[in-house]
Order: sequence, then structure tokens, then C-alpha cells
Amino acid sequence: MSKPKVFEKPTGVKDYLPEAVAKLRSIEFRVLGCMERWGYSQIVTPTLEFYDTVGAASSTSDNKLFKLLDQNGRTLVLRSDITAPIARVVASLLKTEPLPVRLSYHANVFRTFEEEAGRESEFYQTGVELVGDPSSEADAEVIALAIASLQAAGVQRFKIALGHVGFLNGLFNETLEGRDEEQTALKERLLNRDYVGYRKLIRDFALEDTKRAELESILRLRGGDEICEQARSVTRDPQAQQSLTHLCEVWDVLKAYGVSEHVVIDLTMIGNFSYYTGMTFEGYAADHGFPVCSGGRYDNLLAQFGRPAPATGFALKTNRIMEVAGGEIEQPYKVLILYDANHREEAFRCAKEMRGREGLKVETRRIENESEGDSMKLVAEGVYEYDGQRYGDIISFF
Amino acid sequence: MSKPKVFEKPTGVKDYLPEAVAKLRSIEFRVLGCMERWGYSQIVTPTLEFYDTVGAASSTSDNKLFKLLDQNGRTLVLRSDITAPIARVVASLLKTEPLPVRLSYHANVFRTFEEEAGRESEFYQTGVELVGDPSSEADAEVIALAIASLQAAGVQRFKIALGHVGFLNGLFNETLEGRDEEQTALKERLLNRDYVGYRKLIRDFALEDTKRAELESILRLRGGDEICEQARSVTRDPQAQQSLTHLCEVWDVLKAYGVSEHVVIDLTMIGNFSYYTGMTFEGYAADHGFPVCSGGRYDNLLAQFGRPAPATGFALKTNRIMEVAGGEIEQPYKVLILYDANHREEAFRCAKEMRGREGLKVETRRIENESEGDSMKLVAEGVYEYDGQRYGDIISFF
Repeated sequence: MSKPKVFEKPTGVKDYLPEAVAKLRSIEFRVLGCMERWGYSQIVTPTLEFYDTVGAASSTSDNKLFKLLDQNGRTLVLRSDITAPIARVVASLLKTEPLPVRLSYHANVFRTFEEEAGRESEFYQTGVELVGDPSSEADAEVIALAIASLQAAGVQRFKIALGHVGFLNGLFNETLEGRDEEQTALKERLLNRDYVGYRKLIRDFALEDTKRAELESILRLRGGDEICEQARSVTRDPQAQQSLTHLCEVWDVLKAYGVSEHVVIDLTMIGNFSYYTGMTFEGYAADHGFPVCSGGRYDNLLAQFGRPAPATGFALKTNRIMEVAGGEIEQPYKVLILYDANHREEAFRCAKEMRGREGLKVETRRIENESEGDSMKLVAEGVYEYDGQRYGDIISFF
Repeated sequence: MSKPKVFEKPTGVKDYLPEAVAKLRSIEFRVLGCMERWGYSQIVTPTLEFYDTVGAASSTSDNKLFKLLDQNGRTLVLRSDITAPIARVVASLLKTEPLPVRLSYHANVFRTFEEEAGRESEFYQTGVELVGDPSSEADAEVIALAIASLQAAGVQRFKIALGHVGFLNGLFNETLEGRDEEQTALKERLLNRDYVGYRKLIRDFALEDTKRAELESILRLRGGDEICEQARSVTRDPQAQQSLTHLCEVWDVLKAYGVSEHVVIDLTMIGNFSYYTGMTFEGYAADHGFPVCSGGRYDNLLAQFGRPAPATGFALKTNRIMEVAGGEIEQPYKVLILYDANHREEAFRCAKEMRGREGLKVETRRIENESEGDSMKLVAEGVYEYDGQRYGDIISFF
């Protein structure tokens, strides 16, 4: 193994230079502000968690977790999501807090090899968890807040695909009862949006024609709330029916929020997190293939931490949003103040006064004699260059 | 080994609940804003770095680094400071950027056992690096900015202790030439501010009385710039003399900034980072024993990453500042909107309108019938309680 070059960094991690940081932080600031206005309070959890508890409760497969040992030989993980840590906090530090609890976060998470997020091993999520409310109002609230958050982040055009794990589970149990491997194979195709592969599988499975038609028909179940009605005739499974009723209720609440135009019911949607128990959703930016947010209901996770409670939430894929978000980042106006040793106090007084004004970025630099000041040049209307750097204004004291 | 309880977290890490987050983020926001006004641009570096490069260049002793392996078997570390990663970036991604470069950061760092920071394994630092300027003006700029940052963070009363590694190195080389172990022992006592132990050591060492007196006298060298003059008579070592000249220059610039009242020259100050090469400083909050910031000049670090350049900077110990910073965090005004199914749209319209106003935090909740709304109670002037939670106002739609 050759020695790494000194400037190398590990695979899948990156540096954010000032322009990228300004964009990232602007998204963070606007989205967290939006979440706060909706009643969500920000929490921060540690980067390191126990593998046995939070690591196991997270939705990340074992081989994607970064693991290390603490001094006592216990296995730690770098957090791979924030939902499991928040469940831990709600069940411990916040255990006497009355429900519902509304929490928000902006945090970096870690996966050893993240195909999904452009092969990044460390990336940002900005999200909320609403714990303690089992209702369709709560599910609709987090979807409406996801929409408001995407808008606050500057994502102009997007669609939310809304499904329910209970619909597919019910339908599959009805059509492929006890055939777990086949069910899993179908779910995997749907998770990867591999509809060709899905069709091929149901052709190959030993199935009555009516059941094959049922399984095939769900690929056409995409649209507004009329889809729920159409789907009712596809299956009579009670769990599937109950899921459709729930989705209709969520749709009604979304209409009252005035945001149903952004939502498409998609009954092939299957949350990619093992802990989802109810509705799940994903947001897609128009003209971009990749999801910009995902969420869903997870009513069993809190019990793993000793405080059973229903919960629903979502996370924005903040790095993806950096790629699609519009809106200009306002650059501060850069000023350079040059001075010689005899005019230091005047220069610093001027710098202090200017640093008190909004949106100014003020550098100072001592020069040995007046002629050094001559090396500044005007390179464009209102743009001065000095020693290779550009400023909106240069002020001299000598 | 027993299975950990589900609510446990690893040693030395913590959760920040909303009130603590509000305080932490307010400090972060105000300090980064201050740094930006002084011309510093924010960067973000990854949590994971290579052990061989950044890990080795950091000032953290090997047994304090969190280590893990990547998929290729290379050793990674959780960053233990941000100075070494920034040196890596300045020498790689920013290698064509003209110097001086001014960068700021707010980041969590990791040490396996952090006596110094209240045994925290993960804690925050907010700081700057000024790369490419060897002058005393640059050193004074970062000290003045540390002062402005502490003030922006809400630390009311503090002192900056300013020293120079060259003074102690010069003095020790003169008095204890070639006696490295004894020099190291003395430095360790000074680093721990164990003056009793320092005195005991110099009594025990085999030394001429004049040299013993020299070594003893530095314990009294604390004060304003008159200390530099007094110190000149203690030693004639050229490196020590040069260091004193530099400190006098820095002092002059600090006077021009109008901040020398916050600074005490303390020639027993020894930076606790192995990479410091020049002036070093530490800030102490009044009435608190612990340092709230530390910084210094490190002219050899950048060369390790292939771009030799002088540099100076500091980091605030942000968690410590949370404990001492004054200033109230403005709590948003919480409003609860209750509605029944027939008045959902009106309720959401009202929520939307209120969420558009400054400083309001608006929750909505559906109730089944009007009598549920009766369970709200006025518990104090302008404080309503509903279902165990408190609000500034409760609005009902039914």
C-alpha cells in the first residue's frame, strides 16, 4: 500500500469551499426557519452512537455503517440517520415531555458507500419528526411541511409521490400468501423503480390470471385521489383497504393545506426504510431523476427505546437540494483598507465602523509605503484588484 | 459485557435539547457573522480524514484520536481539530488562491478522552485561520478578532494571555542547553500552570544561581507591554530577544485596535499545540478557571501539505462559551390553532398567515368536538396550557 499523497482525503467525503458553504448554510437556515414556524424545535444529537441500540434501530444495512470501538471495546457507529437518535432522545431525555413532540434537525450522516446519494459517505439531512400523533392529520402535516421546506430551500418545481406500505403488503399477502421470497423480490423491483423487472417477475411466478392482473394493475395506479378509488377494486384485502382509506384522509387534509397539486398518489411507492409502517413519500425535483426528500410513518420504532409512540417525519436530502435549488446567494461587498504604520489607528477605526454595517466584509492590510498602494487596479466597473484578490472598494490611509 | 440499556449513549457525547441548541446556534451565528465582517469566509471540511496525513499533522496525541478503518483497510480518524484540515485544503483545493487567505469554521471535533474540555469526546470549535501573512499585524488581527468574537458570543469579561514559544525556547536553551528532558519537564509544568511544580523542579536541577534566578523570574513576567522590556534583561538569548520584539509589535497593533486592555502578556504561556512556532494566546472568562479560546502562529504546518506558508489563527471553545455567555435567547411566541374537520381550511389559512409573521411558532391540532377545546386553561398572565403544553395564545376554529 503506497503512502497517500498529503492532500488526499478519504473516499466519499468532501470539502465545501466558501461559495458552497454559503449555499448549504442558506438552505439550512431557511429550512430550519420554516420548520420552526411550523412548531418544530431543533435538536442536536451526537455523531457517535452505540451500534447495539441506535445502530441496530437505524434503517441502514449493517455493511453500510461506519463502525469503531470505544475504549471499553464497545462497538460505536457514526450515525447513519437522525430518526433513530431522535427516537432515543424522545424515550430518554424527553421521556416526561407530553406528546405530541415536534423536533427538527440539520445534521451530517454517514454511510460507508452511498450509491443513493452520489456515492457520498458523509452528507447532510434536514428534517423533522412528529412523535405521538397517529392521525392522518399528522401525516398530512409532515407532507405539507416537506413541501413548504422544499419551497423555502428554493426548489421551484417538484412532485411528492405518496404511497402506503400497508397497501402493497395487503395486496401481496392476498395474491402471494406465504410466498415471502417472491414478495421480497417484487418489493425490491418496486424500490428500485424497475417496472420492467417487476412485470417479468409476475409473468414468471405461478399465479392465477386474475391475481397476475391485480399485481400488474398497480403499475397504472398513479394520480390524484381518484387512484385510491380505483385501487379499492383491485384488492379486497382489509389491510390494503384500510391503507387506501388512510391515504384518502391524508389527501383531504393536503387539499385543505392547498398543496395537493404537488402530490401524486403512487401505490407502487415503497419506503426504502425498514421501519416504515404506514404512508411513505418521496419528493422529486422536476427535470432531475433523484429524490430530494423522503419520509413516512414509523409507529414501531419508539417502542424499541422503551416509549411506544406513533411517529411520522421526513428528511430533505440537503446535498441534492444544493444541486437543484435556485436563488442567488447574496455575496457580501468586500472592502480592502490599506494603511501604513503611521495611519494604523485611523484605518482600524474606519474598519470597525464599516464592519458595523450590514453586508460588508472588510479586510485590512498594512503596506510599507505609498507606492505599494499603487498596485491596485480597476479591472471592471466597481471591481478593484489588489495582489490577486478582488474587492468592491479599496480605501487607503497614508 | 451486559447489553447496554436502550437509552444509553457513548461516553463523552451528548444531546443538545432545543434550549441548548438555541444558545449554541445563536453563538455560532453571531461569531461566524463577526468573522465574516472581518473578511473571513466559511469552509466546511469532512468529519473523516486520513490518519497518515491530517491525523498526524494535528496537535492531538495519538491515543486521543478516534480511529477506524475504511473499506480498503486504510486508517481514518475523526478530525480532532480544524487547523490541520484547513492546511490540507489551502494546499490542495485552494492551491492557486493568492495569499493571504482568510478562512473561518464552526465544527465539531473529536478526542477519545478530553480532560481539558470537561471530558467531552465531541465538542464544538468556532475559529479562523489567516494563511500567508507572517507579520505581527496578522498576529494582532487574529487576537483582535478573537476579542471581537468573544464579545459577539456574549462573553462579557475575559482576559487574553499572550506569550511566545520562542521566548521560552530561547530562555531554556540558554539556561539548560542540551538538557532536553529537563526543558520538557519545565514546559509541562507551565502548560499545566503548575507553578509550584515548576519552582520545585528548578530548585532540584543542577544550575548556577543566576540561571536559577532567570528561570524563576519569568513567573513574575505578567502584565502590559512593560513586561517585554523587563524580560529583555532576563535573557540575552537572540531567539528570546526576537520574540520579545515581536510581542512588542503585536502589542502596538493591539493598542491601535483599542483592545490592549483585554490582553495580558504572560511569558509563561506555552501553547498546548505542538505546531505553534510563534506567539500563542489563550482567553479566560472572568470568574471561570477554564480557557474559552486559544490560538497562535504555526509557520511550519502548511509545508507538511506541500504549500509552505506562514499562518496564524485561533479557535473559540464553543461549548465552554455556552456555559459563560450572557444574553437572553429570544424564545419564539408559540400559538396553538385548534380546529374540527369542518373548519380545517380556515384553520390552515390562519396558520399560514401567522407563520409568515416574524417570531411566531404555530402548531395546529384537530379536535373531535368543541368540548375538547374546553380543556385549555389559562395558567398565568398570557400563558395558556393545552394537553400539558404551554402557548402564548390558543385560537379555535369550530
